[in-house]
Amino acid sequence: MITLVIGGCRSGKSSHALGLANALSGTRKLFIATSVPTDSEMENRVIKHQQERGNSWITAEEPLEIANIIDEKSGSSDVILVDCLTLWTSNLMFNNLDQPAIELKLQALASSLGRACCPVILVSNEVGAGIVPENALARQFRDLAGFVNQRIASVADRVVWMVAGIPVKIKPVTTV
Amino acid sequence: MITLVIGGCRSGKSSHALGLANALSGTRKLFIATSVPTDSEMENRVIKHQQERGNSWITAEEPLEIANIIDEKSGSSDVILVDCLTLWTSNLMFNNLDQPAIELKLQALASSLGRACCPVILVSNEVGAGIVPENALARQFRDLAGFVNQRIASVADRVVWMVAGIPVKIKPVTTV
Amino acid sequence: MITLVIGGCRSGKSSHALGLANALSGTRKLFIATSVPTDSEMENRVIKHQQERGNSWITAEEPLEIANIIDEKSGSSDVILVDCLTLWTSNLMFNNLDQPAIELKLQALASSLGRACCPVILVSNEVGAGIVPENALARQFRDLAGFVNQRIASVADRVVWMVAGIPVKIKPVTTV
Repeated sequence: MITLVIGGCRSGKSSHALGLANALSGTRKLFIATSVPTDSEMENRVIKHQQERGNSWITAEEPLEIANIIDEKSGSSDVILVDCLTLWTSNLMFNNLDQPAIELKLQALASSLGRACCPVILVSNEVGAGIVPENALARQFRDLAGFVNQRIASVADRVVWMVAGIPVKIKPVTTV
Repeated sequence: MITLVIGGCRSGKSSHALGLANALSGTRKLFIATSVPTDSEMENRVIKHQQERGNSWITAEEPLEIANIIDEKSGSSDVILVDCLTLWTSNLMFNNLDQPAIELKLQALASSLGRACCPVILVSNEVGAGIVPENALARQFRDLAGFVNQRIASVADRVVWMVAGIPVKIKPVTTV
Repeated sequence: MITLVIGGCRSGKSSHALGLANALSGTRKLFIATSVPTDSEMENRVIKHQQERGNSWITAEEPLEIANIIDEKSGSSDVILVDCLTLWTSNLMFNNLDQPAIELKLQALASSLGRACCPVILVSNEVGAGIVPENALARQFRDLAGFVNQRIASVADRVVWMVAGIPVKIKPVTTV
């Protein structure tokens, strides 16, 4: 079961994803943080987040190779939570990967999700519902983040759209 | 019955909220405007909005203390409409309230909604679904506006997400 | 049957709209492109998009007068796809049409949709769910794009909100 939790900034994505993960049975919980702290302020935030998750969670900090971790660890985990894909996308861009290299990473992630032996929950940001950014790099990032969201949503069994902390289930698609 | 109507700019929030309020029975309608006009152009817009609402509405202009007004007036009102929380959040920030003081105001608002003797409808903006702003103050505001939306949505009985003038009921949460 | 497909940047709008159109019976398919290429790079993109749509589609490039084309061609078409309204709105603004002239164009479009003899599918962007832009022209555009979306959604039989490539049907409105 692959779940994508997507929403705007401060829409309650991470909190909802954590709640979904904690509601699952099993005690072997792996948190993949795509944010890697570069100063003591960030380090303190990371430690605070780890304490909030509690002792049942193991944290892996990995800015790029999340597909590898899912491949290696899903057999020995009861749930994997990836937070978040938008920062991962940003990491891919800032490591100067070109479009084909980014495509390969995205393909590798989608494939690892298809093979995963435990539930995987991924958090991502909607960044495309505002005005077109004046900054060209921001436009490029916005495009890429949107493609990543579409791709992972297409392989997810379940997609939840967050608004003001309210989870709206949008996949499986309901027929009206 | 507490209702939060949330959506992007020009998504039809205020109009939908007014429609919900006017559909209720009773004639004692209180409009709390968090926008306080500072020049004649704004004053003219406010007068125009009051005329559009019609004679059945009393307007209170209050940039900060909306919890107090709800406490004082809900017993003698048939409906209260607050438009809007995002401007209220902005007012809190521009009055240089620090984080704990803002938390207290938010807590006071949530408590007043819990005690309200009449239906209260609140309008708010989604501001977090675009690209991360380059301006630090804008990022801080975006975070705060998101927290306010989550908090008020959590105490609301009903949350409506507006898209292009279409109301999408997202709370109570439907099970798929 | 009038359908509006709306969503953020890279939310899968155009692709979903094309899928809806291709699922209809009939072979006379008209694509109204509101983007008019001004250099060879854009021209190449347009040619690439035409090839992706395949031979069953005829393309009309029209930055402003889409109402006229719908009036002229809906009788001899099996489906019309308009991509996209946001660029059309931008074209109206950059042609220095004033507010009343823009209102007339919008009214003409809404009327032509009411008269259309074949299904019409329109694509549009949500641009109002981010932070308020610092640029005054961007704010004006954001307001106008939102009004266009509301107006066309109000005359549409069906509105689909796209998130990460997932179509969420928001009109007809479901009762919860």
